[in-house]
Amino acid sequence: MQTITSPSNPRFKEALQLHTSRGRKKQNRIIVFGRREIDRAISEGITPDQIFVQSESEISSFDDQKVYQLPEKLFQKLSYGNRIEDAIMTAARPLTGLNSFNLKEEAFVTVLESIEKPGNLGGILRSADGSGVDGVIVANPVTDVYHPNSIRNSSGATFGLPIAVDSNENVLTKLQSSGFRILVASPNAESNFYDVDLRGKTAIVLGNEAQGVTDFWSEAADEAFNIPMLGIADSLNVSVTAAIVMYESLRQRKQ
Amino acid sequence: MQTITSPSNPRFKEALQLHTSRGRKKQNRIIVFGRREIDRAISEGITPDQIFVQSESEISSFDDQKVYQLPEKLFQKLSYGNRIEDAIMTAARPLTGLNSFNLKEEAFVTVLESIEKPGNLGGILRSADGSGVDGVIVANPVTDVYHPNSIRNSSGATFGLPIAVDSNENVLTKLQSSGFRILVASPNAESNFYDVDLRGKTAIVLGNEAQGVTDFWSEAADEAFNIPMLGIADSLNVSVTAAIVMYESLRQRKQ
Repeated sequence: MQTITSPSNPRFKEALQLHTSRGRKKQNRIIVFGRREIDRAISEGITPDQIFVQSESEISSFDDQKVYQLPEKLFQKLSYGNRIEDAIMTAARPLTGLNSFNLKEEAFVTVLESIEKPGNLGGILRSADGSGVDGVIVANPVTDVYHPNSIRNSSGATFGLPIAVDSNENVLTKLQSSGFRILVASPNAESNFYDVDLRGKTAIVLGNEAQGVTDFWSEAADEAFNIPMLGIADSLNVSVTAAIVMYESLRQRKQ
Repeated sequence: MQTITSPSNPRFKEALQLHTSRGRKKQNRIIVFGRREIDRAISEGITPDQIFVQSESEISSFDDQKVYQLPEKLFQKLSYGNRIEDAIMTAARPLTGLNSFNLKEEAFVTVLESIEKPGNLGGILRSADGSGVDGVIVANPVTDVYHPNSIRNSSGATFGLPIAVDSNENVLTKLQSSGFRILVASPNAESNFYDVDLRGKTAIVLGNEAQGVTDFWSEAADEAFNIPMLGIADSLNVSVTAAIVMYESLRQRKQ
């Protein structure tokens, strides 16, 4: 273990830049906060560049060479939001190219078009992981899928799933050439999600918080489904919509 | 319409106190931010005490007698968080006693034990409303069901549902004496939620974010169910859990 004491230490400064989307893009790296998320990332094959800790008691299970101890003030500066962290890791950004997004024959995939809130993105990854979705594709991204709030809300499930990020056009081409049925969530659809077939090689497409799916996906889709809304509100949170459809797919596939 | 210009105006000061749980309790009133939420509250029978606006263009559909225009600075002070509001309403707190919580014969009810985050509470109310749940009971509350973040996350669905708030003991007595089957969500349950009968007179009980349901409910329950977790994470967000179970209940009841 080494110790960093100065805020002008280059490792520290570089890590701090990873708080922003711009910094992550520039360095092509990610930052992961918290033991649970770090442990899940490592057990899923992510190799840490470095791990920052405040207390020596946190280092036990990490490769000693890569651990840097920070004084309280620097550690808090490197932490994210108000949460008190136990450890902070940086790592190379996982590959999210469509070319490396290879799925089994009967894959069930969730496509997220331009989701705006990192928390929703992470929440969907957590439910996708739980429900056994084979992969998640972020199309026309407006939010970094490795945003700290996304990783946090996923509780680290981000690292357990194949993830691809690309333009609407490239995603559609990939799905169609691979023989996926494409289903979109739409409040105007005539069928509800219980009655559509969510088994087989299927991609469900969910649109962003404000507008839902764009015409690009509505027009490309093989089928559309809605979520019954029996009360006074006219829609559900996108993360909730994703979860109930993914778990309905699991129900249908189990039978 | 009247105009308030001073921050020491009693109406303004009283309304400002409703930002806090303590203030709401003391006055036995609630505060509702935003036109969508206000409109839903009013259409569900809530009578405004007063409505604060900044711009005259917002007042059209309100009863003129109750509308108070505020200058920008005061209006922003009365707004909540960073969101720019269009209107702010105060009203008497709706009744949430178990005695007035009367449900139809075959009611499906969701019980939330000690949920901590107002956002989760509101998110569950939104999904409960959408899935046609007949009522929501908050047991052993630690968060105000009328917290501004709860109302906001419910998108106003809070006002479309019968809601009761009481102790675990009183809620259990009420449910048992009314003949409800009681099902609890538990990661240790042998049955998954697809395979339990979620029709008929049923109450599902969900525990708080950190601990899940307490022994009180586990021991009182007629049956327990889990949510299959096929990935690397060991649980779902409680709002997501609630939504998928409530929508599975709707699926079963539709058949």
